[in-house]
Amino acid sequence: MSPAAPGAGTVLDGVPAGAFGPQTQAHGVVDRPGERPRVGVRLHDAVLDVGRAARRDGLDLADALSEPTLDAFMALGPAAWAQEREWLDALLPSLDPADELLVPLGQVGLRLPFTVADYVDFYASREHASNLGALFRPGQPPLPAAWTHLPVGYHGRAGTVVVSGTGVRRPVGQVRPPGSAAPEVVASRRLDIEAEVGFVVGIGSVQGEPVPLSAFADHVFGVCLVDDWSARDLQAWEYVPLGPFLGKSFATSVSAWVTPLSSLAAARVPAPPREHPVQAYLDDTDHPWGLDLRLGVTLQGHHVSSPPFAGMYWTAAQQLAHLTVAGASLRTGDLFASGTVSGPGRHQRGSLIELTWGGAEPLVLPDGTTRTFLEDGDEVVVTAWAPGPDEEHPVGLGEVRGRVLPARPLP
Amino acid sequence: MSPAAPGAGTVLDGVPAGAFGPQTQAHGVVDRPGERPRVGVRLHDAVLDVGRAARRDGLDLADALSEPTLDAFMALGPAAWAQEREWLDALLPSLDPADELLVPLGQVGLRLPFTVADYVDFYASREHASNLGALFRPGQPPLPAAWTHLPVGYHGRAGTVVVSGTGVRRPVGQVRPPGSAAPEVVASRRLDIEAEVGFVVGIGSVQGEPVPLSAFADHVFGVCLVDDWSARDLQAWEYVPLGPFLGKSFATSVSAWVTPLSSLAAARVPAPPREHPVQAYLDDTDHPWGLDLRLGVTLQGHHVSSPPFAGMYWTAAQQLAHLTVAGASLRTGDLFASGTVSGPGRHQRGSLIELTWGGAEPLVLPDGTTRTFLEDGDEVVVTAWAPGPDEEHPVGLGEVRGRVLPARPLP
Repeated sequence: MSPAAPGAGTVLDGVPAGAFGPQTQAHGVVDRPGERPRVGVRLHDAVLDVGRAARRDGLDLADALSEPTLDAFMALGPAAWAQEREWLDALLPSLDPADELLVPLGQVGLRLPFTVADYVDFYASREHASNLGALFRPGQPPLPAAWTHLPVGYHGRAGTVVVSGTGVRRPVGQVRPPGSAAPEVVASRRLDIEAEVGFVVGIGSVQGEPVPLSAFADHVFGVCLVDDWSARDLQAWEYVPLGPFLGKSFATSVSAWVTPLSSLAAARVPAPPREHPVQAYLDDTDHPWGLDLRLGVTLQGHHVSSPPFAGMYWTAAQQLAHLTVAGASLRTGDLFASGTVSGPGRHQRGSLIELTWGGAEPLVLPDGTTRTFLEDGDEVVVTAWAPGPDEEHPVGLGEVRGRVLPARPLP
Repeated sequence: MSPAAPGAGTVLDGVPAGAFGPQTQAHGVVDRPGERPRVGVRLHDAVLDVGRAARRDGLDLADALSEPTLDAFMALGPAAWAQEREWLDALLPSLDPADELLVPLGQVGLRLPFTVADYVDFYASREHASNLGALFRPGQPPLPAAWTHLPVGYHGRAGTVVVSGTGVRRPVGQVRPPGSAAPEVVASRRLDIEAEVGFVVGIGSVQGEPVPLSAFADHVFGVCLVDDWSARDLQAWEYVPLGPFLGKSFATSVSAWVTPLSSLAAARVPAPPREHPVQAYLDDTDHPWGLDLRLGVTLQGHHVSSPPFAGMYWTAAQQLAHLTVAGASLRTGDLFASGTVSGPGRHQRGSLIELTWGGAEPLVLPDGTTRTFLEDGDEVVVTAWAPGPDEEHPVGLGEVRGRVLPARPLP
């Protein structure tokens, strides 16, 4: 598994041209031969060495922006984030394309941009939760009783979060084949993706003290894309009663770029109507954090889905308020993801188990091949973009890309 | 919440005298006024500044043993652990009690001894799993279908693992009162403990490559005690289908001392017979890692339970093999806990929900007060010891202690 993704700069799968212009300011960590990794800000198909640029301009953020992760800069908090934005808003539009601090993306590798502290995965799409309920628990109500009252979530494995471009080894584990009483150990036959949006915490909080909805943007630095690889056969056998474990913990891919929350001001939308009034700590009437992000999923280069994030039942701000209401603290680098983004339409589903209805309705790709779940060698790319300040300036999220490596021999 | 526990050295709740003699070599991190925290090895009611002692003796481990956590030393791996043990085996029995590097426990604070990477909690006591099944899912089979085939586990929150002695704030969150259709937000009325044993990973592994049972002692440095505080009312409402979340993530306490695995050679016992033959990767015939640890639980100073670890259905070595079989990697500082230790006897249960059968059968303490779940101000202490090389040299685990702080105002 390669530690660094190729820094491909191609515009992908419906992401409009210009989505990584000066309005976007996606932050990552670049790797160049003979250099320590450094923070970079993407500008179209190039990346600005933002630490050296800050030093050249006499900015006191230069040290934090010269680190090999985003951790130090994120930990400076919202005043520093705003200061950097103001500086970049002035600098980037007029930057000389031949500036020595601007390096073509093709010449750099991209690293995991931050140290993942705790990783939480939510389950915020009503359509996804209903689809999975119908597939995993046929004959029972598709939505669990608590689902419309609180953002259901669980902790994943922080240590296996990898950057976009890292190969994903097909997991091996126990499954119980249909009709069989006993399990067997196999290479997963139902390897799936989950197209998600991740939120990255910059500023931590104190154990025992909840973070209210209104403080969302004081804690969350930015947004990335997430592919929460899932072995559905392992998951189905193991998940009662403590939730997914090995079916999810072998790899979770994140984009190499974190788009600051401040770049998404024009993408904010109200969340959809809720079925019941929510508890006070989840009431977001005054703090709507729906986000009009338009995701795209390609499999082997073929577009297979267009999940819409705007319709997610629970917003990230509600998720953060819920995550902390009982006393859990936050740390710099905490990552929490939305859960699979699925819309009501069949071509808006963010996982193969939904797109193929549990494998019963295979996808037919334009090359004539079919897929139920992933085959060895398959490459999946998830992209997203959002409306920006005007039509010429859409805002891109970095893509998350991964290819399936064959399983190791059975133990 | 205090960052450091008082370094109390009293022998506790059935732990035999001498349990922290030279045979035990429990490792912790001590805090002294005006000094950076440093690794220490406990010797009875004192602690040896093991970094300075190693330097005095010209040991090349001195740097790693002078750090403010165990991380660097644990990351050196089993050859270094064995080298340190050989040195301490020779040094400790003949150490002058007036040695300047030996500090009374009462004069130091104790810190979280390692940086928790990922935290996994298993569910390895058949009695506990059956009891909780009967209490949470009445009318259904108490053991989930997979339970006798694999060690069920899930990821907890690493960022809220705290050292023994830290106060634990009563959590607030959603519950659904019996007979009610709608939830409400309350301070938990069913705050509980879970007495567990934790295993601390020293040496990591590569993503995609399983760690076989036979490599257990190559990766795991030592053992601590864990109190996995649980809000049963929050947990009952939230846990379907993705498992416990807020009901467990507000605080998990660990002992300030990590007892090396190498101190527990005499405590190894076969695991109990398994109901089915297990899959090859879980077959521990040649690597039995049952451990005869004898736990004790006190509530407000009164002994309330004696959970026996020897009867746990799944061993820690099986848990590690399972955790990694699908490809999850390990990191230095990964903590995995056994799940609540409960034996078949009523007074062998490791949680209040079991001891009081869901609150229906209150405990009567010797002072005449009763308890179902924890009240504000209650202090719980979990202790444990194991047979050592001979009767005079039992091996102690550091206690884990916590007091309940009142809830914050409702949000």
